[in-house]
Amino acid sequence: MVWKGRIECILICTHMIENGKRIVIVGGVAGGASCAARARRLCEKCTIEIFEKSPFVSFANCGLPYYVGNVITEEKNLLVATPQRFHDYFNIKVHTEHEVTAIDPAAREIEVCDLKTGVRRSEPYDALVMATGANAIRPPLPGIDLPGVRILRTIPDSRRMRAAVEKAGSAVVVGGGFIGLEMAENLVRRNISVTIIEAAPQVMTPLDPEMAIRVAQQLKENGVEVRVNCAVESFAESKGGGLEVHVSTGESLRADLAVLAIGVKPAAELAVTAGIDTGSSGGIHVDDSMRTSDPNIWAVGDVVETTDIVTGTRRPLALAGPANRQGRVAAATIMRSFYPETCERRSGIRFRGVQATSVCGVFGMTVAMTGANERALQHAGIEDFERVYLHPGHHVGYYPGARPIHLKLIYSTTDGRILGAQAVGEAGVERRIDVIAMAMQMGGTVFDLEEAELCYAPQFGAAKDPVNLAGMIAANTLRGDFSPAAWEELNSSNAVVLDVRSPEEFRDGHIPGSVNIPLPDLRGRIDELSPAESEEWKHREVWLTCGVGQRAYYATRLLMQNGYNVKVLSGGMMTYETLVAARSQSAAP
Amino acid sequence: MVWKGRIECILICTHMIENGKRIVIVGGVAGGASCAARARRLCEKCTIEIFEKSPFVSFANCGLPYYVGNVITEEKNLLVATPQRFHDYFNIKVHTEHEVTAIDPAAREIEVCDLKTGVRRSEPYDALVMATGANAIRPPLPGIDLPGVRILRTIPDSRRMRAAVEKAGSAVVVGGGFIGLEMAENLVRRNISVTIIEAAPQVMTPLDPEMAIRVAQQLKENGVEVRVNCAVESFAESKGGGLEVHVSTGESLRADLAVLAIGVKPAAELAVTAGIDTGSSGGIHVDDSMRTSDPNIWAVGDVVETTDIVTGTRRPLALAGPANRQGRVAAATIMRSFYPETCERRSGIRFRGVQATSVCGVFGMTVAMTGANERALQHAGIEDFERVYLHPGHHVGYYPGARPIHLKLIYSTTDGRILGAQAVGEAGVERRIDVIAMAMQMGGTVFDLEEAELCYAPQFGAAKDPVNLAGMIAANTLRGDFSPAAWEELNSSNAVVLDVRSPEEFRDGHIPGSVNIPLPDLRGRIDELSPAESEEWKHREVWLTCGVGQRAYYATRLLMQNGYNVKVLSGGMMTYETLVAARSQSAAP
Repeated sequence: MVWKGRIECILICTHMIENGKRIVIVGGVAGGASCAARARRLCEKCTIEIFEKSPFVSFANCGLPYYVGNVITEEKNLLVATPQRFHDYFNIKVHTEHEVTAIDPAAREIEVCDLKTGVRRSEPYDALVMATGANAIRPPLPGIDLPGVRILRTIPDSRRMRAAVEKAGSAVVVGGGFIGLEMAENLVRRNISVTIIEAAPQVMTPLDPEMAIRVAQQLKENGVEVRVNCAVESFAESKGGGLEVHVSTGESLRADLAVLAIGVKPAAELAVTAGIDTGSSGGIHVDDSMRTSDPNIWAVGDVVETTDIVTGTRRPLALAGPANRQGRVAAATIMRSFYPETCERRSGIRFRGVQATSVCGVFGMTVAMTGANERALQHAGIEDFERVYLHPGHHVGYYPGARPIHLKLIYSTTDGRILGAQAVGEAGVERRIDVIAMAMQMGGTVFDLEEAELCYAPQFGAAKDPVNLAGMIAANTLRGDFSPAAWEELNSSNAVVLDVRSPEEFRDGHIPGSVNIPLPDLRGRIDELSPAESEEWKHREVWLTCGVGQRAYYATRLLMQNGYNVKVLSGGMMTYETLVAARSQSAAP
Repeated sequence: MVWKGRIECILICTHMIENGKRIVIVGGVAGGASCAARARRLCEKCTIEIFEKSPFVSFANCGLPYYVGNVITEEKNLLVATPQRFHDYFNIKVHTEHEVTAIDPAAREIEVCDLKTGVRRSEPYDALVMATGANAIRPPLPGIDLPGVRILRTIPDSRRMRAAVEKAGSAVVVGGGFIGLEMAENLVRRNISVTIIEAAPQVMTPLDPEMAIRVAQQLKENGVEVRVNCAVESFAESKGGGLEVHVSTGESLRADLAVLAIGVKPAAELAVTAGIDTGSSGGIHVDDSMRTSDPNIWAVGDVVETTDIVTGTRRPLALAGPANRQGRVAAATIMRSFYPETCERRSGIRFRGVQATSVCGVFGMTVAMTGANERALQHAGIEDFERVYLHPGHHVGYYPGARPIHLKLIYSTTDGRILGAQAVGEAGVERRIDVIAMAMQMGGTVFDLEEAELCYAPQFGAAKDPVNLAGMIAANTLRGDFSPAAWEELNSSNAVVLDVRSPEEFRDGHIPGSVNIPLPDLRGRIDELSPAESEEWKHREVWLTCGVGQRAYYATRLLMQNGYNVKVLSGGMMTYETLVAARSQSAAP
């Protein structure tokens, strides 16, 4: 399920390759551009041409929301590389505003239409790379083609959106994923009143609900209205100008602007028509050298299905990092196919698969994740997992300014392997997810996180970094130091909930029905737990809670060694609050 | 040389342990306090006592410079845990102001002196843990005991330092390592004029010189005078009050205050007297379960020698993270020694060794590192290594506010294993070093860095993160895409230095004797490189440079495939400038 090998590496001498071949790349943004540049570095004599439907190559599509928000003020800043640069640096010919309209795999030719003139022509290839990306999903709803309903995928889209924003006072963002949240933040930056509509019971579905609720709260605190369990049904022109957005609750929301951010789907039509295999997800099927079912055609980026290293499932993943690496792999394996004797020793170039590491900024909050969430594991039939929650500071508490990182770690109960991590906070969040992502890439376990030796000075972390703590807590469950209680069974279980916080903390709010014995009193009052007249406590499970889980853990060890059947409510009241809020949100429209 | 195994983990049921044993811990700061708390969690019935010479346990010694600098304003914030907390949470008795004066291993007793009364007594132990830490090095120089010459190791030290700072206008900091730099920054915060004196040719010796020069420049830009190759020879009282610091250049520096920050040495005298083995470094010798040569005595933290996972050398390392982890390991193995049948299945608890990951803030610059530097590798007889330099932004350039990270990666040319990394910059530095540290802990290679899937959104990183770039560049050298030139041979080599930047960039400064052909012109002007009348170029190496190394790499691939014998000056002019500056600094007093 997980890649376990290691790329072999052998020093080679690179010789001049005399017989140039023709590499044609369809699409010149992330994966296509990377493939082209890498191919040139590997082979000076090949002909390399890029055909790009839009007027731009290698533009920063991840920056578009921030261009709308005027954080990025100049359009030219979005152009990572120009056709001129491709020519000057790489001797690569870029044909912008050229749409590839057909592939003839047998003849190894493509049909190209020059969009400026409408003239069509054929172009031959020895290797073809499909880097056609993904298209925004536009469901066939009434009114979806109204001028006020917009998407943001290209630089021309962003120009139109900027113009629309100048005149808008309100917007509905359809979809609460990465792009939806980034759009919401940037529209608020432009003084637009924003409502997010999300059909799912939560925003940011790559997170589990109790983590996503923190994101919803952050949006609300910044003036964004968030409607979950709420699907758009149609758009209509409003009488007073702007749009009426009709939603599944029966309501109608007026807005000057609607932004579609429902997601994307692989732009695989061209490949399908040419008979190239796609997977059940609709993405082009490729092997680990990024080769399609046609031996002369490769595919990279958002248009392909990739293998998730945690779940083993194949799906498209619209992320720039994997797209770039896939472009490099495709270039290397194309060269090997051209010149097996020269390139054979350049062995082992293969794409390892993806783990969906991603990050999003939401009004100063950082939301980051890597690997699978609980839903994805269940969907993949993986059941031998456990999760822990923790809420450590991003640096030591004794240095001013520490902000909590709310971290969830999911791991295999069979071997301790890390399956996923999700984190939310104001500082240091992406750093911890990156460290865990690196460990996962290497097949690491919670024991590896426990032992990680990370940067520590008071303003930079802690002697026990949040990553170490996550590993220690998880490793403690595997060593049998404690068992996590199942939060979702809190209401159905007959366990006694014991809260070991101070009476003052308990008074300010606690789990209904829970009992309070502060940790410092517990050793002295242990007899209260099993009164002579009742054997009940010894037969019931005791579930422990506190503020964030630390004191509960200490109490657990104490009680376990006194013969009690104890579990810990991981993350304590700080986790409990989000579980309650998530449940109430998912129930409400 | 490197730990390659994995901790085995088996779920166990924890039973009540009836026969309590007596664990005595000498020293209650990082490793000692961690060991005590962990021991209690593993065994509720043991007696656990801590003897601590100072009035405080578990205090934040890493915070002391910031307390002097008034960043941390309250002394109580430095107390991570109090004796009362140890009692309340863990049923652990803490004896502060109790000095352990002797160990009798045969009788399993220690002699303790109550410093408040002067009364001595014996205390028995079943397991003894030496967590006596390290002492500041105080060379026997004339005047070193003058009241103005101070160290900063304890809370009382920091009180005295704060009082001294109130009246001081100038200070000499002796030693340019972590503590010296933190002290310099915090004294400047208190409006004190600071001179750092460092006997070595550079500050921050865990860095290689060309990285350390950036730190020296940062200090100077913030008003700190930096004197390298300058040893202190004696201190004397100044006639006008304050001190005269006589240094090896023959000069005398006047200052109101001198801070000794030369380094620390293991406080192992007690162990040595008791016949416990120490290593050549003076630290207590322990096995990987933190057990000393005496089977009933363990040792943890700054007082022990640990094994460096990169070089295999054994040395003391005064870092809080490893000390805490060692404390946990000692607690687990003590339990196993007490109750082999109960704890046997709690197997595999062993300390993996250290890689010296560390970080330091210097006036808003972050300096971080992990693993070995070049000097340490040479010292350990490791010769099969190479290094690359890069200077990427901490996030994409198209999003405002990107700041460069100056990164050096050292790796094995035999198998690509990562041997060390050093980074300097204003943002995102500790994150990248942490990711590389995690990879190293797992035995990772540059190929693993290349494939790492890390957080990317415009304000958080890049599709090709600095970690990916470092891996790609290094992996490219191992794949034979290019060879790095030896910067240190720049003056002695007969190679032609070809600078492929624009004429404007070249005009603003270049390597003496270098030739300028801009990259966009190179394909067209390739004949200039081998004029008909001269075969010289084809027989000489061509060393390529540009701004940061990227264009040079592109040019290298172009020239290699045209038959030239090419190498890249890694990191380009941005590396060159620091090499020149480092050479000039190491030569000057």
